[in-house]
Amino acid sequence: MKLDGVPSRTIWLEPDGWSIGIIDQTLLPHKIVRPVLKTVEDAARAIKTMQVRGAPLIGVTAAYGVALAMRVDASDASLDNAVAFLGAQRPTAVNLRWALEDLRTTLLPLAPSIRAVAAYARAAELAEDDVETCRNIGVNGLKLIKEIAIRKGGGPVNVLTHCNAGWLACVDWGTATSPIYHAHDAGIPVHIWVDETRPRNQGAALTAFELLQHGVPHSLIADNAGGHFMQAGDVDLVIVGTDRVTANGDVANKIGTYLKALAAHDTRVPFYVALPFSTIDWRTEKGSDIPIEERSEDEVLYVQGKLPNGELGSVLISAEGTHARNPAFDVTPARLVTGFITERGICAASREGLLSLYPEKTSEVA
Amino acid sequence: MKLDGVPSRTIWLEPDGWSIGIIDQTLLPHKIVRPVLKTVEDAARAIKTMQVRGAPLIGVTAAYGVALAMRVDASDASLDNAVAFLGAQRPTAVNLRWALEDLRTTLLPLAPSIRAVAAYARAAELAEDDVETCRNIGVNGLKLIKEIAIRKGGGPVNVLTHCNAGWLACVDWGTATSPIYHAHDAGIPVHIWVDETRPRNQGAALTAFELLQHGVPHSLIADNAGGHFMQAGDVDLVIVGTDRVTANGDVANKIGTYLKALAAHDTRVPFYVALPFSTIDWRTEKGSDIPIEERSEDEVLYVQGKLPNGELGSVLISAEGTHARNPAFDVTPARLVTGFITERGICAASREGLLSLYPEKTSEVA
Repeated sequence: MKLDGVPSRTIWLEPDGWSIGIIDQTLLPHKIVRPVLKTVEDAARAIKTMQVRGAPLIGVTAAYGVALAMRVDASDASLDNAVAFLGAQRPTAVNLRWALEDLRTTLLPLAPSIRAVAAYARAAELAEDDVETCRNIGVNGLKLIKEIAIRKGGGPVNVLTHCNAGWLACVDWGTATSPIYHAHDAGIPVHIWVDETRPRNQGAALTAFELLQHGVPHSLIADNAGGHFMQAGDVDLVIVGTDRVTANGDVANKIGTYLKALAAHDTRVPFYVALPFSTIDWRTEKGSDIPIEERSEDEVLYVQGKLPNGELGSVLISAEGTHARNPAFDVTPARLVTGFITERGICAASREGLLSLYPEKTSEVA
Repeated sequence: MKLDGVPSRTIWLEPDGWSIGIIDQTLLPHKIVRPVLKTVEDAARAIKTMQVRGAPLIGVTAAYGVALAMRVDASDASLDNAVAFLGAQRPTAVNLRWALEDLRTTLLPLAPSIRAVAAYARAAELAEDDVETCRNIGVNGLKLIKEIAIRKGGGPVNVLTHCNAGWLACVDWGTATSPIYHAHDAGIPVHIWVDETRPRNQGAALTAFELLQHGVPHSLIADNAGGHFMQAGDVDLVIVGTDRVTANGDVANKIGTYLKALAAHDTRVPFYVALPFSTIDWRTEKGSDIPIEERSEDEVLYVQGKLPNGELGSVLISAEGTHARNPAFDVTPARLVTGFITERGICAASREGLLSLYPEKTSEVA
């Protein structure tokens, strides 16, 4: 989508043909900086420090990380090391493991001499696949927005989203945002309630930013406010992304998603989760089996933003001596989810629903 | 309770015998500054800018505001003006209207010459009454914590609270925190989950601060995280305050309370609301009749805190050009509330429950 008015992706091969360009998302929305990854360590650091974030983009970055490793040393040991090293950076993200397993499976049978070239090719293919997947999620989700627009017969369709499952989390289009961009581009009036998404403020910093850049009407709200707007009838639809969906349809997503799902359920607002196939963890039975990453307390204690002098900085929001806890994800039970929007269509949030879209997974499912 | 190791209240008569001391709560937890209110305009500004906040403290401040007005001009017109002016500063807080009506009723029958003295006396009485009321809320709520401590047979009782219904919101003890302080002082181990409470961060800035000052173990969490900790079994009890309870038991409180009540209900965690009698709005039938104050978008867009150089400052968390919406309260339906803790005891969150503790209100109730 557009960044500074120019069509852009979140990750690309640099003109040198081997180093990898990304957008440093920790500096958004205040500064647009494009670091270049030249080693597997660079790729790992970009994943760990969340310069790149979002399940699909993490996967593609890891794939390019393997390519960077193969360029230096294409041995089996190097491949194993790169896969293990990159996989350890974000324990909850299933796409990371999925992409790394894909790379390992692709490269292992090949002669070491061609592994680097094959890794770059496969990483590029994963990037293209993600764009196409996200585009199809949008085409499928667009139907829901169209239906509501017709039912309302005027006025914008109000969509609430949490965190950033936008194009910045993918390669292009986004997952939760793809139906929104498709609706907006089709001339259907939409208005997006953007959850701030504490503690890292991905909604305030990224989702609001990308909607602003694309010209989609939106309002930033505190994470606390979504329930009130649902009670008031000001939310027609919730669409969120996910970091992992288990075989029974439970949804691990950014901390706080569960609370919005409860409010949507209580107020009869449809609650959809947009996801690519790669986010489905067929081998994990249910959400309570997912390990929840706990991150540094400093993410809660300090808030980053732009100072009045234009520099980036952070403020301490509590007294010196206050400690915090910082779980990064929560699990929304399938019973609170109206449905999944995937690149293949829309289905119920259940084992049966998922298998109706992915029947080839019947033998794999937990 | 203790501030800098010294027992303190949130509002007091200065040694000059007429001006009013307060703590500027907008500077907490980073700086302890005690402004002096000398006019009704000072009192109104302190209420509007939230130098004083919390239902009981707003009421006492308004009462002293009337006293400051009477000191200058004790006419009927001045009394009416002061009541109308002070009452307009925070539309949702029922204690504000309650205290102002009390002052008007007390002063109107009196000769103007004695109204100022009577106003100071009544304001002081309201302050003392609030201390005693909060103390009794604590004594009553302590029973709940004791029961859980006995049932658990060891380890701390984990209590989650939202916003600041602490002693800083009252004159002393607090409402939601009073059972906690009573339990801690009685040697019952407690651990408090403190919701940050965006957008104004009253949890991070005030509740965590006052618990730290009093030595009560606690952890600050993002507003998004409470549901996850409830799912994990790490919350034994929720106690929040309220800005207004309607006749049917619906609860208006800081934005986000509804989301925590939903999570508590979903995970079978007891959800209690601590309140003094003055917070009950007998004449309003239900929560949807309550007007919800919407505050400046800047409270969402900017976060205040301490800069690395020790100065207070704020950072912009979104792109220039992003707009926000900022409802200050939401309504938690009575069906999600396990019970009310008041100075008279514990009751069900219903018309019948409330009347069981306040039978004298039977003729007034909506």
